[in-house]
Amino acid sequence: MPKHFLIKRSPLAPKKEPKLKPIKQIKLFTFSAGLYGNRRDDIAIFIFPKNSSVAEVFTNSSMRSVALDWNEKILKNNKIHALFINSGNANTFTGDHGKKSVRSIVENIKKIYSITDNNVFVASTGVIGEPFPIEKVLSAINKPKETINWLSAAKAIMTTDTFPKGISKTSIVEGKKVTITGISKGSGMINPNMATMLGFVFIDADIGSGLLKKILKNCVAESFNAISVDGDESTNDTVVLAATRSIKFKKPIKNIKDSRINDLNNKLKKVFIELSELIVRDGEGATKLINVSVINAKNISEARTIAKSIANSSLIKTAIHGSDPNWGRIIMALGKTYIKIKTDRLKIYFGKHLVAKNGTAHSQFNNSSIKSYLKSKKIEILIDLGIGEKSFKVLTCDLSKKYIDINAAYKT
Amino acid sequence: MPKHFLIKRSPLAPKKEPKLKPIKQIKLFTFSAGLYGNRRDDIAIFIFPKNSSVAEVFTNSSMRSVALDWNEKILKNNKIHALFINSGNANTFTGDHGKKSVRSIVENIKKIYSITDNNVFVASTGVIGEPFPIEKVLSAINKPKETINWLSAAKAIMTTDTFPKGISKTSIVEGKKVTITGISKGSGMINPNMATMLGFVFIDADIGSGLLKKILKNCVAESFNAISVDGDESTNDTVVLAATRSIKFKKPIKNIKDSRINDLNNKLKKVFIELSELIVRDGEGATKLINVSVINAKNISEARTIAKSIANSSLIKTAIHGSDPNWGRIIMALGKTYIKIKTDRLKIYFGKHLVAKNGTAHSQFNNSSIKSYLKSKKIEILIDLGIGEKSFKVLTCDLSKKYIDINAAYKT
Repeated sequence: MPKHFLIKRSPLAPKKEPKLKPIKQIKLFTFSAGLYGNRRDDIAIFIFPKNSSVAEVFTNSSMRSVALDWNEKILKNNKIHALFINSGNANTFTGDHGKKSVRSIVENIKKIYSITDNNVFVASTGVIGEPFPIEKVLSAINKPKETINWLSAAKAIMTTDTFPKGISKTSIVEGKKVTITGISKGSGMINPNMATMLGFVFIDADIGSGLLKKILKNCVAESFNAISVDGDESTNDTVVLAATRSIKFKKPIKNIKDSRINDLNNKLKKVFIELSELIVRDGEGATKLINVSVINAKNISEARTIAKSIANSSLIKTAIHGSDPNWGRIIMALGKTYIKIKTDRLKIYFGKHLVAKNGTAHSQFNNSSIKSYLKSKKIEILIDLGIGEKSFKVLTCDLSKKYIDINAAYKT
Repeated sequence: MPKHFLIKRSPLAPKKEPKLKPIKQIKLFTFSAGLYGNRRDDIAIFIFPKNSSVAEVFTNSSMRSVALDWNEKILKNNKIHALFINSGNANTFTGDHGKKSVRSIVENIKKIYSITDNNVFVASTGVIGEPFPIEKVLSAINKPKETINWLSAAKAIMTTDTFPKGISKTSIVEGKKVTITGISKGSGMINPNMATMLGFVFIDADIGSGLLKKILKNCVAESFNAISVDGDESTNDTVVLAATRSIKFKKPIKNIKDSRINDLNNKLKKVFIELSELIVRDGEGATKLINVSVINAKNISEARTIAKSIANSSLIKTAIHGSDPNWGRIIMALGKTYIKIKTDRLKIYFGKHLVAKNGTAHSQFNNSSIKSYLKSKKIEILIDLGIGEKSFKVLTCDLSKKYIDINAAYKT
């Protein structure tokens, strides 16, 4: 059983805890199954109004959690009635016992909350391969106590995160106030478990699951799919977008380009980006945020591949950690994508400092002023490929000795 | 200009320096162009008998050194007359000046050593993007002094390696003694440059370049292409196999399956594996060697993908560093290949310790005895996929805080 031992709040954590607006039509229950030694909640259950719509994306891992197999099945119903999330155990590589555990959770929630359909989503995060503590979980959820403090859900889903992650925004659609609240977790790892990224965003607007899927896909592309801590993909990554459909509109909104949801779309995108940025701010041992932008690429796919190659390079991440203007390592990261680069068009910047152009070092390269720029807490790396109009941005963090401390530690 | 500052010999370095047998028909010259402040040689030139054969493989990077563009061109001649190697500058992303530098090196060597063909191979390693110090190089090679101490070549091609790497072996072909000598470099990085891997292997047997290419391909697949330090691929990686063709045979050897070269093939494979293992032993901050074997795979390609996914995972490398039997991270690394795994057939071992089988943790998992096994300097991770007969092995090292120290350091 993993023991959660406290580490200091990340130096990149926001100064204050977020104020989260509850979505009134959703009931929240949090519990402690004692998976972290009774010191904290480790389960959150959200109960939705009937006919709430849902969209979900999850890890491509071929070894994913059995919970995701279940969700994939019920996702076809396009409806969500309950969402169960636990920390402390990933329910991954847990054999038949793991599958039966998911089924028991669903059956018990249906009974306790008088749900007659199967639309009970399950998300788990924590240690891989250990038997799922189903007895503890079932006995904990047996006595539901409702809460309106949604931050307690953000806290319950933490594994080794150093701070709870959440954000609320409002948008006006057809003159009516729509509330958006999201929570996420990820990136702290000190126990034998994964840096699972989980994200859950809830709205009260009447948006059906077809449109919800398109919105989710767009939002995730620029947020959860555009961050990186160490290039390892978890078995449990999942992001859910759900709508209670309580706020009705004169005419149903079905098209993502419907101008009535322009603002809602923007606000949702901001919520997703903020939730994913909070994960990078909690990256193990992170001391700096690094924004890698690739611009003027032939297509988005090449821009993404190059941005990720840079963002995932341990050599570049350690160089930035050491405030080292080592742009040669960026040349390496470009090259190892095997993508053809027009070197005479390529420009590389650290912040506003041009370091390379015309296939060679920039002659006015000022080492000391770039070094002092690289001492900031937020670093911009800009790659101008000069051959097209597409771009992609990835947010990552530096690689410090604390990453090793955190991930080499094993406490039983 | 990079400054080389000395760091302690890797704890995984061999106890003794190797004894290298010169290939008598090859003349060796080493020089100091002062690229490391006159303290050491930084250039090696090998002069071959006319009609020596050659095979070369190099990096797939799309930002490779201009030296490799040149080599690719002359490689079509299938002959090598000279090999120039310098450390201190990679001649990568150096624009027109870099291209002209390669040409000047070739022209000067042709003049000095009275070579009338173009078969002068060039290999460079060191900092990327800084102007190639061609004047210093040309003035240094102007006064050739021959040496029979081949270890001096292994030393001249070091960048931030902590020990010189070389090995000699002999084989008997048709009753005649064939000598094999190889040198390599790579993996120490403390300056703004790359962990370029270079390998050069020389033999005196009469093997033409056609067969040499096949031998090289086989050898590299199990050696230089089966190691990993941090998953970053250099712009300058290159491996050369050259034969003086001095030792003649009754009937020419043209087929890799010719039984007369069974022993030579085996010895060459051993030389290549040893040269590449020495690079991992000099991995930045390495304290443990990790052998990742994937067996009973459907095909070699899947076995290789899985072995590399494990070998390149920072999470697994830090876990091994901390002697943490964290096999959940191996499940993650399997999953992120997206390769379909039959979990009920999968077995995972640390050394002789079975840790997972039948889709879940092994019930007799003995945490403390596995932890003590993981304290050894050489760790075996075995993944039995149980679905075929193919296998692949990758050698890597652990990830320690010293890696961060080395790669975050910048000294001007």
